[in-house]
Amino acid sequence: MLFLLCYNVNVMQNIYLDNAATTQPLDMLEDTYRQYAGAGWYNPSALYKPAVDAGRQLKDAAETLLSAFGSSTHRCLFTSGGTEGANTVILRGVKNKKNCNYVCGGFEHPCVDECFRQLAQAGADVRFITPDASGMIDPAAVLQAVDMDTVLVSVMHVNNETGAINDIQRIAAGVKAKNPDTLFFSDGVQAFLREPLADTSQIDYYTVSAHKLHAHKGTGAIFYTPKAPLKPLLLGGGQQGGLRSGTEDMLGILSFAKAAAHYHTNAQRFNAQIRELHEAFLAALGQIDGMHVLSPQGAQGCAHIVTLAFEDVAGETLLHSLEAKGIYVSNGAACSSKKGKSRMQDALRLPAAITDGVIRVSFSIYNTLDDVATAAGEIAGIVPTLRQYTRK
Amino acid sequence: MLFLLCYNVNVMQNIYLDNAATTQPLDMLEDTYRQYAGAGWYNPSALYKPAVDAGRQLKDAAETLLSAFGSSTHRCLFTSGGTEGANTVILRGVKNKKNCNYVCGGFEHPCVDECFRQLAQAGADVRFITPDASGMIDPAAVLQAVDMDTVLVSVMHVNNETGAINDIQRIAAGVKAKNPDTLFFSDGVQAFLREPLADTSQIDYYTVSAHKLHAHKGTGAIFYTPKAPLKPLLLGGGQQGGLRSGTEDMLGILSFAKAAAHYHTNAQRFNAQIRELHEAFLAALGQIDGMHVLSPQGAQGCAHIVTLAFEDVAGETLLHSLEAKGIYVSNGAACSSKKGKSRMQDALRLPAAITDGVIRVSFSIYNTLDDVATAAGEIAGIVPTLRQYTRK
Repeated sequence: MLFLLCYNVNVMQNIYLDNAATTQPLDMLEDTYRQYAGAGWYNPSALYKPAVDAGRQLKDAAETLLSAFGSSTHRCLFTSGGTEGANTVILRGVKNKKNCNYVCGGFEHPCVDECFRQLAQAGADVRFITPDASGMIDPAAVLQAVDMDTVLVSVMHVNNETGAINDIQRIAAGVKAKNPDTLFFSDGVQAFLREPLADTSQIDYYTVSAHKLHAHKGTGAIFYTPKAPLKPLLLGGGQQGGLRSGTEDMLGILSFAKAAAHYHTNAQRFNAQIRELHEAFLAALGQIDGMHVLSPQGAQGCAHIVTLAFEDVAGETLLHSLEAKGIYVSNGAACSSKKGKSRMQDALRLPAAITDGVIRVSFSIYNTLDDVATAAGEIAGIVPTLRQYTRK
Repeated sequence: MLFLLCYNVNVMQNIYLDNAATTQPLDMLEDTYRQYAGAGWYNPSALYKPAVDAGRQLKDAAETLLSAFGSSTHRCLFTSGGTEGANTVILRGVKNKKNCNYVCGGFEHPCVDECFRQLAQAGADVRFITPDASGMIDPAAVLQAVDMDTVLVSVMHVNNETGAINDIQRIAAGVKAKNPDTLFFSDGVQAFLREPLADTSQIDYYTVSAHKLHAHKGTGAIFYTPKAPLKPLLLGGGQQGGLRSGTEDMLGILSFAKAAAHYHTNAQRFNAQIRELHEAFLAALGQIDGMHVLSPQGAQGCAHIVTLAFEDVAGETLLHSLEAKGIYVSNGAACSSKKGKSRMQDALRLPAAITDGVIRVSFSIYNTLDDVATAAGEIAGIVPTLRQYTRK
C-alpha cells in the first residue's frame, strides 16, 4: 500500500468489485497452508498413518462441504473446479440413450453450455430454454420442454453474468413430477452458500468452485445423489473410488472446506452484509441517464452481482477508466471477457444501444460501504465524460 | 515433534521414504503462498492491471517450466496434474484415424495405461510393449511395433514403480525415422528435472506433475510442440487459448514454477545427493537372504527409486512394521497401493515367491544419510523376524 502511495496517488485505492470472477483468499487460509505444508501433504492413497490421516481429512472436508450444501445423503467428488465438475456431469453423468434429449438453460456458464453444444454437434437433441431479459429461466418453459425421453435437465442456480436466481428446487420438483427418470443438474458455482436451498433431495448433481468463496483456484466439487450415474472423466490410479483419478489436491480441498465452514457459520451475516452493499451501491448510483440495471432486483437477484448497461458507453472503456482509479469491475464474466459480448447480447437480446455498454459489479465480504459509495460516485462521474467522446 | 515424543517414543522419528508418491513442499513456497494471497489471486482472464499481472505471472511460469525442460520451442499447457495431462494427450492429442494403431509401453502409469485400454476396448489397435524384468522398455521392440499407421507412441521416461529409465530420446528418434508422422508422448512425471534430456525436439508431448517435485498436488503441465495436435478435454470459458478451460490455479502454478526453478538451479547437486542416498541405502542393506533389487542399478535406474522384493515376506506387513518405527515406504505406487500387486506382478512377471514381498523406497532432498542408514538397518532387522511367521 505504501508502495502504491509512492507510485501514483491516483491508484492508491484498491477497490475490488469483480468477486463473481474470483475472490480474495481468506486470511485464515494461511494457517491451513501451514498445517498442510507441515503434516497435511502426504498422499492420501498411501497406507501409513500420516497418509491415512490425510485421507481422513479428505473425508472430513467432503462432509463439511455437504453439510454446507444442506444434504446428508449426497456424495462429494472433488474436482479441479467448476469447469471439470460440469464437464464430468454432462459428458459422463448420463448415458446417451437412443432418441434421448437434453434440456438446458439458454444462458448457462460456458462450461455447461459448451458441453451441450458439443453433444448437439454430435447429433444429440438439446433443447435450450430462452431466458428472460435478466437471464432468468422460466420453470414452466423447462417443464414444457421435458418429455419421457429427457435424460438430463441443466439449469444453473445463480447466473454468473446477471445474478438472476433460478428457482431450481421448483424446476427440479417439476421435472421429477413429469419424468421421474430425468436427472437434474444445477451449476451452483455462484450460488453455493449464498443462496440457501431448503430441499436438495431432487438435485441429482450440483457443482461448486472453491475460489468463488474465498478459497483457492483449482478446486471444486460435485455433489451427487447415490443414485445419480457418474463415470470418470479422468482415468488412472482410481482415486476417489475410481470416479476421478489423480492425487487429490490436499491444499485446495482443505482450504475449500475451511472457507466453506467459515462462510456457512456466518452465512446469514455475510449475505446480509453483501445485500447491504448491493443496495447502497444502487442507491449511491441513483438515476443515471441511459443506465439500465440488467440484474433482477429484490429476491430474484443474488446479492453479490449487479450488472449495469449504459447507453452510448463502451463497457471496456468504462472498466479501464475505473481501473485508473483503482476500482476493478468486469465487462462481463472473466471467462468470456476476452471473447466479446456476443453471448450475453444473444442470450438477453440486449437492445443495440446498450450492447457494448455492460459492466458487472460484484461484491464480497471484503468490500465496505465506502468502497461501493466510491465506485458508484466514480461511475456517475465517468459515464457522462465518456459519452462526450462516444455519443453520436 | 514434541507431541510425538510425548505420544510414543517408538514413533519419534519420521523418515519419509515414499517420495515417488508425493514430496514435502519446499519451505520457500510459504513465501509464494503469501505473494499469491496478497496480490497474486486475481483472475488472469480479467482485463484490469492486477489481473493482467497475474496473466503475466502465468506466462513467466510457463517459460520457467519450459526452460527447466530444456526447450525453447515447446508450449506449456497447465493441467490439474499428471493424470489430466496424460488423459488429454492420449484422448485429445491424436485424431483416431481409420485403421490407425497406437504403441504403448507395457508398464505405464495407470493414467496412461487406462486411457489406452479404453481406446482398445473401443476397438482401437493398441500394441503394448512388454518391459524387461526391471520395467524397462526395449527401444527395438517399440520400433518393431511402429508402422505407417501408428499415430501415437507412448513410453514413460522413468517408471514410477521401479525407477527404470527409458531412453526416450532414442525411442523418439527411432519412431520419427520410421514414421515421421507418428507422434511421441512421454509421461515425465517421475523424470522431470531428475533425468536430463539433451534433445527434446522429437518429444511431441511430455507431461509433468508439481507435487513430485516439492510443489503442490493438483497442478501439472503438458509440454507440447507447436505442431502436435491437441484438443481440449475440458470445455468452457476458453482459458489457455481454448485448450483447457477453467480458471488457472494461480497458487499451484506459481508454486510449481518456483519449485522447478529451484530444482533446476540445483539439479546437479540435488540429483548427486539423491544418488548418494540410493547407494548408501543399498550398501547399508547389504546382502539380505532372499532379497531381490528389482530396480535397475547404475545409469539405467533413476536415483530416487529403489524397489525391493523379499521372498516369504508380505510387503504390506513390512510396510506397517516400518511404519511402527516412523519409517514410511510404499508397497508399490500409492495410486495402486489399494489395488493389490497385480499390475506389477503381471508386467514384470515376478516369480511367485516374491510377488507379495515388494516395497518401494524413494528418496528426496529432504532425506539424510542417517535416514537411509536407519531405514536399511530396520529393514534388515525386521525381515528375518517377519519370516518367522510367514516362512512355511
